Amino acid sequence: MSFDRRSFLKYLGVAGASVGAGIVALENVTKDGIKNTLLGTSEAQADTKGSVGTQNYDVKPGELDSYYGFWSGGHSGEVRILGVPSMRELKRIPVFNMDVGSGYGVTNESKALLKGRFCGDTHHVHGSYKDGIYDAKYLFVNDKLNNRVARIRMDYMEVDKIVDVPNIQGMHGLFTQRFPKTDWVVCNGEFQVPVPNSSATSTDAPSKYYGIHSIIDAEKMEVVCQIMMDENMDLAATDYGGKYSMTTSYNTEKGVTVSEMLANDNDAMLVFNWERIRKALSANNYKMINGVKVIDGREGKSDIVLRIPIPKNPHGINVTPDGKYAICSGKVAPICSVVEIAKLDEAFSGKIKPKDCIVAQPYIGLGPLHTTYDGRGNAYTSVFIDSTNVKWNIQKAIDAEKLGAEEKKKNAHIIDVLDIHYQVGHIMASMAETKEADGKWLISLNKFSKDRFLNVGPAKNECEQLIDISGEKLKLVHDSAIYIEPHDCIIVRRDIVEKVVKDRYNMFEHPLAVTKSGVERKGNKVTVKLTANAPVFGLQEVKLKKGDDVTVIVTNNDEISDLGHGFALSNYNINFVVSPFQTKSVTFKADKPGVHWAYCTNFCHALHLEMRMRFIIT
Amino acid sequence: MSFDRRSFLKYLGVAGASVGAGIVALENVTKDGIKNTLLGTSEAQADTKGSVGTQNYDVKPGELDSYYGFWSGGHSGEVRILGVPSMRELKRIPVFNMDVGSGYGVTNESKALLKGRFCGDTHHVHGSYKDGIYDAKYLFVNDKLNNRVARIRMDYMEVDKIVDVPNIQGMHGLFTQRFPKTDWVVCNGEFQVPVPNSSATSTDAPSKYYGIHSIIDAEKMEVVCQIMMDENMDLAATDYGGKYSMTTSYNTEKGVTVSEMLANDNDAMLVFNWERIRKALSANNYKMINGVKVIDGREGKSDIVLRIPIPKNPHGINVTPDGKYAICSGKVAPICSVVEIAKLDEAFSGKIKPKDCIVAQPYIGLGPLHTTYDGRGNAYTSVFIDSTNVKWNIQKAIDAEKLGAEEKKKNAHIIDVLDIHYQVGHIMASMAETKEADGKWLISLNKFSKDRFLNVGPAKNECEQLIDISGEKLKLVHDSAIYIEPHDCIIVRRDIVEKVVKDRYNMFEHPLAVTKSGVERKGNKVTVKLTANAPVFGLQEVKLKKGDDVTVIVTNNDEISDLGHGFALSNYNINFVVSPFQTKSVTFKADKPGVHWAYCTNFCHALHLEMRMRFIIT
Repeated sequence: MSFDRRSFLKYLGVAGASVGAGIVALENVTKDGIKNTLLGTSEAQADTKGSVGTQNYDVKPGELDSYYGFWSGGHSGEVRILGVPSMRELKRIPVFNMDVGSGYGVTNESKALLKGRFCGDTHHVHGSYKDGIYDAKYLFVNDKLNNRVARIRMDYMEVDKIVDVPNIQGMHGLFTQRFPKTDWVVCNGEFQVPVPNSSATSTDAPSKYYGIHSIIDAEKMEVVCQIMMDENMDLAATDYGGKYSMTTSYNTEKGVTVSEMLANDNDAMLVFNWERIRKALSANNYKMINGVKVIDGREGKSDIVLRIPIPKNPHGINVTPDGKYAICSGKVAPICSVVEIAKLDEAFSGKIKPKDCIVAQPYIGLGPLHTTYDGRGNAYTSVFIDSTNVKWNIQKAIDAEKLGAEEKKKNAHIIDVLDIHYQVGHIMASMAETKEADGKWLISLNKFSKDRFLNVGPAKNECEQLIDISGEKLKLVHDSAIYIEPHDCIIVRRDIVEKVVKDRYNMFEHPLAVTKSGVERKGNKVTVKLTANAPVFGLQEVKLKKGDDVTVIVTNNDEISDLGHGFALSNYNINFVVSPFQTKSVTFKADKPGVHWAYCTNFCHALHLEMRMRFIIT
Repeated sequence: MSFDRRSFLKYLGVAGASVGAGIVALENVTKDGIKNTLLGTSEAQADTKGSVGTQNYDVKPGELDSYYGFWSGGHSGEVRILGVPSMRELKRIPVFNMDVGSGYGVTNESKALLKGRFCGDTHHVHGSYKDGIYDAKYLFVNDKLNNRVARIRMDYMEVDKIVDVPNIQGMHGLFTQRFPKTDWVVCNGEFQVPVPNSSATSTDAPSKYYGIHSIIDAEKMEVVCQIMMDENMDLAATDYGGKYSMTTSYNTEKGVTVSEMLANDNDAMLVFNWERIRKALSANNYKMINGVKVIDGREGKSDIVLRIPIPKNPHGINVTPDGKYAICSGKVAPICSVVEIAKLDEAFSGKIKPKDCIVAQPYIGLGPLHTTYDGRGNAYTSVFIDSTNVKWNIQKAIDAEKLGAEEKKKNAHIIDVLDIHYQVGHIMASMAETKEADGKWLISLNKFSKDRFLNVGPAKNECEQLIDISGEKLKLVHDSAIYIEPHDCIIVRRDIVEKVVKDRYNMFEHPLAVTKSGVERKGNKVTVKLTANAPVFGLQEVKLKKGDDVTVIVTNNDEISDLGHGFALSNYNINFVVSPFQTKSVTFKADKPGVHWAYCTNFCHALHLEMRMRFIIT
């Protein structure tokens, strides 16, 4: 039953060997087993004798979870709400994907949001903030595939706006402004491309490819401006002072193959100075490209960006809850780089060198990806190749750095190392991306699950693990299966969210809300207005002519919480759900003559099956 | 926090009052509270002092579930695999829906299955059988919306065929042949329509509408024949002897409004005699309509169908694991009707009247919908309006029926009544649809969940409840949240399924499997053949001309279990996943010039982010 870790690591090493010298060096480390190395030579042995969390994770019938978890669904294109610690999936929010259950991608309202693009790749979901804490107004999430940002209203828990972002490709890292409140949302272009990227400018010369750091207006959902860079940009973060956005870059080389991207020993952390961006905008120091203001942020072209050298192909960047440090994970280097945010202004003003902002580079493990926090001064880093979560103390790492190489070798910063199952990507602790990080639960979002669940065929689910971090040691308490793909998440205290969540829509927010059913015809354009009250639609039949252009508008006039109705039209490939007081519409061509029943798909009443009506098309 | 049952019942009563006298009578019953009535007047009180199950339901990290649960996803259009008793969702299998995570509805292979129809409404999933037990070869599931049947291969756990069924509308009940093996699959037309249903024959006269009972060849996935009926047909079942299919009909009235459908006190259970169907086919007693053989099964037109009168608007029909009884749930009548299958041949031959096949009609509760079994002679019926699961003894109900009205009033058949949360539809016990029903777990698939989980907005999840039925009393042990819509399920012992499930594809089952990458051009038709081996695609770049008609074929050449790759093409709305040794393809028009990166969306390696390639379109 046990996963063959050795052969898997060998596999990774062999594959690595074929693509570049960088990964071969890491393979040697693997052979020793990084976990044993760390624990065998440090105070961590003592720490493993420390306390273990005893929190209850079994949420019994009738009990509620303590946290809302908001999950990006990766290439499912959706966002999910999970309860923590139960790990129950409470909702799928379709974002960039078609979702026939709710009718997202089917109704006119959702088609206007999606503009014909039903694929997406949601990587990072972050909430809007006020003074370093979520204000429970919005969630924002990126689409890496089609380069869009979507906004989710947290009162209805559904997408209300999507903005297309031009000039950018492989839109990856996304983060929201944390202070004083979320006016800006930043997102990164991971893939460098020509700017603009059209046949006139297209070139296969990667030296003329650029990465783009974009700033979105959170309320208007418009692009404020973009910063054009030589570097690619991967993950994103903002500080707690409202002064900077920050990103990692793993392709400072402008490589287009794996080995080219691995060439440099150092890549970079990039810091964007928001005051200087505002000044550049005021001074009209930008070009308009594809309708947006593009500021030249390349080295030597502006003073907006600070470049801090970071080894090697770094991935995650996460700011500590006290706002003091940004920690970059090395990915191809087995370390994390701790950057002191208070030093950034000194570096921007030239008083110190960018690299002097780094106050520690502790050894973590093989393939460190992301770091999260418990609010007690400890960091937790996901380590992909080792398949571990490593708990380490930030101050101890900084202290050891000051004391020099011999002290560092003791790895006294390491508190515990937990094997996870398997190959972890993001990890996130409860409230960790706020100043109220509470150190209760840690979620490890793992990419492989083989042997942890019943076998469901070649395409397996992923494995999320729930870890109690209230003690000194990490305690694995629950394996949770999840569909493609638990990319990233935030864990938000229940009291912050539940006060804003509504049970019904404001009916007249939708300009077409129906309170009286009827049919209107203008030539071959027919509008069918339907109320839905359990267990009847407002009309029993509608007569249409073949070729009619038909719009059906349905309003759920039932007030009772949780009482949704579906509207499905047989053979017309139409289905959607209207929740209490919600209105949705569809438009279709009546091209199939005959009798076609429309029926309620969402169980609403003992006579739900009888809730149907005829469309007679002659 | 508690659900306001009284106001909800009042709501149902009031809504009911507006649509027909039938439901008003039930409202009076509601006021007394059916549960108290039952328990206050029967031996059930003694039974409630009986044993309570003590099974472990907490599946800890590293442990596996004991059962595979196969769930129809309702109007999500999908099928799901859950582990029981953990209730973890292990897989979503896209069936009639677009699923951008896996690329179902995106790839050429899946588009050929879906034929442009990306909506569906999966109601009933049943496995193929051999001698009354699942053979773990196939699952079959219906699409109520677009009238299709899909088949899922259980070795890969994915759809391999979909058959369109003509002449039928609102395809609802589906069941598979249980003996000697599954050659036939039956499915019902719930909505009566003209046959054929075209402008020439269309009429708004419901007297000329018909229901259709369809028989599908399980291997060929073709329609064997259809039986045309005056009645509509709701749920379906087959016996354990390979002789009959059975359905309920709630609209013997041919009504088109709720009140018309409620007019008759008795509707029907319909029994189809398979030997007589085979004879009719041999004797060419059918008409070809829309390419399929349609046998006239209307009353007086054939001897194929037995009509057993059943009160009132019955819904579920389920056969006991010993094969002796088919039990129909009354829906608008508060009873179940127990039909003895051994008597059916006597009724078919005219020796007894159809109604004499009914051996008991025990009182159950308000709105009985579906019945399942523990293999120990007990039935469990879901009761929608009461929001209960009722456990009752079949033999006691039959005995009381023989003893007369006074004995029946004692309701001695009732063993326990469990409140569920809320408004249950289907219920299913472990292995209950096989001759090896084991009476361990019961799943209650409930349609309302308000207050049982954190509030997620106007559109709430559903609530499935896991109940330990190993003791005399029903013991609720877990509330599980689930997305639209947990319609129905089967619970299958792990040992039956896991031996057939594969970890990788047979690579050369796909005629286009790629082992060597390359580009072929014929005029503007370009074929791009790509291997995917972590962390590289077989080509670094592909040059295309604007307007090219491009087919990309990707084979995952990685053998390691669980190592999938994604292929996403920026701005082209293309994403799919290939599992080990799987091949998929997409075809697109190269209409957007510029540099477009394709990237791996499915985390595969420490250098997963670097697994990408360029499409340069000039």
